[in-house]
Amino acid sequence: MKVDQPLFFDVMSYANQADRDVIRMVSGNPDWEPPEALREGLRQYADQDADTFQYAPSVGLPRLREQIAKYHNVSEDRVIITNGAGQANYLAMSIALDHTPSGEVFAPDPGYPYYQKRTPVLGGTLKKLTLDTDGAPDINQLQQTVSEETAAIILNSPNNPTGKVYTAETVKKIVELAEQNDVFVISDEVYHQFDYSGQFTSVLEFESSHGIMTNSFSKSLAITGFRVGYSILPEPLVEEARARNMLINVSVNRPGQAAVSHALNATDEAYFESNKHQLRERIDTFVSVLEEYGVQCVRPEGGFYVRVYPQNLGGTLENAKHMIDSAGVAGMPSTAFGDDVDDWFRFALTTDRISDAAHRLGEYFVD
Amino acid sequence: MKVDQPLFFDVMSYANQADRDVIRMVSGNPDWEPPEALREGLRQYADQDADTFQYAPSVGLPRLREQIAKYHNVSEDRVIITNGAGQANYLAMSIALDHTPSGEVFAPDPGYPYYQKRTPVLGGTLKKLTLDTDGAPDINQLQQTVSEETAAIILNSPNNPTGKVYTAETVKKIVELAEQNDVFVISDEVYHQFDYSGQFTSVLEFESSHGIMTNSFSKSLAITGFRVGYSILPEPLVEEARARNMLINVSVNRPGQAAVSHALNATDEAYFESNKHQLRERIDTFVSVLEEYGVQCVRPEGGFYVRVYPQNLGGTLENAKHMIDSAGVAGMPSTAFGDDVDDWFRFALTTDRISDAAHRLGEYFVD
Repeated sequence: MKVDQPLFFDVMSYANQADRDVIRMVSGNPDWEPPEALREGLRQYADQDADTFQYAPSVGLPRLREQIAKYHNVSEDRVIITNGAGQANYLAMSIALDHTPSGEVFAPDPGYPYYQKRTPVLGGTLKKLTLDTDGAPDINQLQQTVSEETAAIILNSPNNPTGKVYTAETVKKIVELAEQNDVFVISDEVYHQFDYSGQFTSVLEFESSHGIMTNSFSKSLAITGFRVGYSILPEPLVEEARARNMLINVSVNRPGQAAVSHALNATDEAYFESNKHQLRERIDTFVSVLEEYGVQCVRPEGGFYVRVYPQNLGGTLENAKHMIDSAGVAGMPSTAFGDDVDDWFRFALTTDRISDAAHRLGEYFVD
Repeated sequence: MKVDQPLFFDVMSYANQADRDVIRMVSGNPDWEPPEALREGLRQYADQDADTFQYAPSVGLPRLREQIAKYHNVSEDRVIITNGAGQANYLAMSIALDHTPSGEVFAPDPGYPYYQKRTPVLGGTLKKLTLDTDGAPDINQLQQTVSEETAAIILNSPNNPTGKVYTAETVKKIVELAEQNDVFVISDEVYHQFDYSGQFTSVLEFESSHGIMTNSFSKSLAITGFRVGYSILPEPLVEEARARNMLINVSVNRPGQAAVSHALNATDEAYFESNKHQLRERIDTFVSVLEEYGVQCVRPEGGFYVRVYPQNLGGTLENAKHMIDSAGVAGMPSTAFGDDVDDWFRFALTTDRISDAAHRLGEYFVD
């Protein structure tokens, strides 16, 4: 089977090779600081006895699982630490596709490309979870198409790339539909700390036997490289999830788990609020400057990304390259997120050169 | 699909709950120190700029890949960093089973149980790679049974649990057989630094288009918890392996990679020699004490493990528990490594209480 790399890499390497100054707004790597306690946790770990350098339990360090369970108000048994949310999603999809072999996986379209690309690798059949004009899942379409042939419905709220935060009603309807058809809802909630709408609703709130939550500290602690994520599963799935998880990765790196656990313990709410506040300001700046140029943008309800609809420039890889060369700004073309969309670009607000980027883009788009 | 956890966990948790002093010889967790430079590398990493806390390239940090490539004398392109050898094996098996869907996987029997348990999870059909009385793969059996229905043959040398180090001739014959049948040889070489026979031969030596090597720093640097492993693949498999690897884990933890890279650079050969020497002495002590009691042992040619054949005690989980309670020594029963073997126990020499353990066992077995 030919497995493609996501288009991210093409855009990033083109930007890296450009013969000019480029403002990089491609990846979701936070450009802000992790909490100081994270560094401290890593230093303390480095000095510990050698026996703490050996395998963590396959499900994760007990203390970290306890912290996660407490935060989400669930039983510790249901928490499995994974190598980032990426592996949590891989694990959840592999469980769903074991329950319904060759089953359909509804992944948001446009959507984060890893969901789409993992589906055939795990033997599933990719189906489009269509979004309404507002960016929310099209419930009518789902109700008409989800069936017992379906293995999973993937949700991602706050959403990458649309910026949509799904309402409680939306999540509830999808969970009910999933239960009726014995389908799993895989809810990727990695941007949950970055909800500007106040309406974020975790799948956990419905206490469903069919809801699997995936998450990570990559974004909330600004450590995408540490690979500490987790999944919270319904009780009946826990045993098989543990066994599968063990066969994929044996266990998750312990330096990262120890540092995250220490950081969670020693970091107060102000850290998270300040990062969220900064992103909100970046959104305001980016959107308002572009709107001054008359460029249409979607102001996100959550997450790191702004979608921009330039009038005379399709969201293709070719145009993304042209934008790098001509405007000095790198963003993701909409074609990277699905087959049918070629009219926008996604810009990650993970740079402090937001105003500069918006002006460059404004001038480029109206040119 | 019901996926069982390896039996390790039953034995370990029984030992942990025992109401007496137990010498633990169950897991392959080194009990010796990692190199000091590893701690130093982790401390230095903790103080680096926040941008180094973000995603490593999915294939791994360039400097670490370069070090690995140089050590094994291969092109860097062929190196992919993985979450331990465990994930390297999972990745290699998934590639082989994509080339030959539902194909047969020949895994050593007796053998490390993860190979056996991963096979059905990845859709393969498990076949026994029978061992001759000496512990080496039975080449005749392989020649008669490997066919185009076969996806992979798994080798592990130095071997866990047999202690066998395969000769160059054995590896060569298996590689030839694999090439003739368009089958992949997955050669797990995690114990390569612990060869006491002088005859260790890597699959890489045959420069085969069908040889995939898997390895890790877990044992060589005494850091099973860091999850830094790697695979060296034939050129034609590299692209699909990279894409698959990305879809499983996105990337491997960067603190671990940075620390390992620093350690490799700053650790001299004496470190590795001294650990090997220590294990050799432990083997001598363990085997000679048991032989004084008249207990039959297999002296390993490589690796961490000694197999012991008590005359009147089958190698079952039940007897392993009895041994914990009565002798105060925890070891793995042979039934954990395959269906047909119930006449030995495997003891991991990862404790400094070797002589004490051997005396306890000697008295228990002759009782």
